[in-house]
Amino acid sequence: MTSGKDPNRPFITGGPSIILVEPQLGENIGACARAMLNCGLTDLRLVRPRDGWPNEKATAAASGADLVLDNAKLFATTAEAVADLHVVYATTVRTRGMIQEFVTPRVAAEQLRAHYAAGHGTGVMFGPERTGLVNDDLTLAEKLITVPLNPAFSSLNLAQAVLLIGYEWFQTGEVPPDRVLHTGQTRPATKAELLNFFDHVESELDRTGFFTTPEKRPSMVRTIRNAFERMQMTEQEVRTFHGIIAALTGRRKGEK
Amino acid sequence: MTSGKDPNRPFITGGPSIILVEPQLGENIGACARAMLNCGLTDLRLVRPRDGWPNEKATAAASGADLVLDNAKLFATTAEAVADLHVVYATTVRTRGMIQEFVTPRVAAEQLRAHYAAGHGTGVMFGPERTGLVNDDLTLAEKLITVPLNPAFSSLNLAQAVLLIGYEWFQTGEVPPDRVLHTGQTRPATKAELLNFFDHVESELDRTGFFTTPEKRPSMVRTIRNAFERMQMTEQEVRTFHGIIAALTGRRKGEK
Repeated sequence: MTSGKDPNRPFITGGPSIILVEPQLGENIGACARAMLNCGLTDLRLVRPRDGWPNEKATAAASGADLVLDNAKLFATTAEAVADLHVVYATTVRTRGMIQEFVTPRVAAEQLRAHYAAGHGTGVMFGPERTGLVNDDLTLAEKLITVPLNPAFSSLNLAQAVLLIGYEWFQTGEVPPDRVLHTGQTRPATKAELLNFFDHVESELDRTGFFTTPEKRPSMVRTIRNAFERMQMTEQEVRTFHGIIAALTGRRKGEK
Repeated sequence: MTSGKDPNRPFITGGPSIILVEPQLGENIGACARAMLNCGLTDLRLVRPRDGWPNEKATAAASGADLVLDNAKLFATTAEAVADLHVVYATTVRTRGMIQEFVTPRVAAEQLRAHYAAGHGTGVMFGPERTGLVNDDLTLAEKLITVPLNPAFSSLNLAQAVLLIGYEWFQTGEVPPDRVLHTGQTRPATKAELLNFFDHVESELDRTGFFTTPEKRPSMVRTIRNAFERMQMTEQEVRTFHGIIAALTGRRKGEK
């Protein structure tokens, strides 16, 4: 799952602020920064990180997301950290008896995207690794985000929680095509090229006696054509497969 | 984002197999197991883990997902690890010039869910931390999964990649089939059946002199295998294509 940095492509920056309240381990802060930049999020806000700031372990764990760490802002209270924001959601899996609206990361991302597009300052809060956000912090949030996961085993580490929120945020943006055939230097075959190939295959199958019962020939031909259609052949592959038929039969296409 | 284990709620188990090819660090295997169980996935398959198996560091990093580690299966080759599966996707961010269909985690999850619901053995392959899957492993996959992320900074660690796939899997729940191969009375071919077919084709191509330059044979073989993987053959079609090769060459499989 590697690929890393491509210096020729611009960083995507901006997005909702990520507010980490009393994060304990520098490694986790660094891993959060990495997950943020993966998702085009660059505004990191830290409330009383336990081991101080800056933190060398954070840098090591950020795997190159220095941009996020270098711009991280430090706050003494959660209230100060969100003071300039308009819309803040908080992540939690504990309800603690509070009456608040829970949304999934997907719904939260859609709502935050709409606010963000309207120019509102947006943010998502995450609590300390072990304990999560306290009630006073939760009251700073309009809505709570809870991730639908295996109910018997739903504990995520901090960076994974940030990743899931950021991932859903990123998916709401410039939506890439969700289903693409990468054809490299070549291009998809035209239907004419494909039909010409079918003609080659079927004439050789006729010649070699593959179709033993004439009445079943049409359905067999359909089966074979369907299978090759699913292959979504490129122009180059059509040529390769012509070559395969020629090799297997010892005859070039159209040879008598 | 903590909550942990709730002994009163049953574990959700099952789901697509997660195949880790040559994972390097035990910590990462453990973190993957945790992410898997978060998402209700419990079939972990390990191909040649670098530091051997079992691995104490994996247990420590699994944060209680022992159920997954205890049931992990060990394999010498990727082909063996997927032999009994019908539908396998692979994660990669590198195209390497191969002609394969790319889908997002969301689309992959929907498709895998539909296959899973139909009783097909499903799996997702992940490569080693630094290098990702090699082309020969990618040819065992019908489709490739690529995660839409910040193009300038898209590197995920192994457990995060597993988490995103698992998360999308979990979100699909009981979702109606969408864009799935309808196989009628038959079923998708197993990888073992497909590999046996590849063996048949390639041995005939060797015999008939299709591979004119030996050094190009490996890439030609990959091209052909990729194309057939995209075909998503059924068990019946595999038999049909064995018949096609036999007809074209005038020889049954294995005939001297």
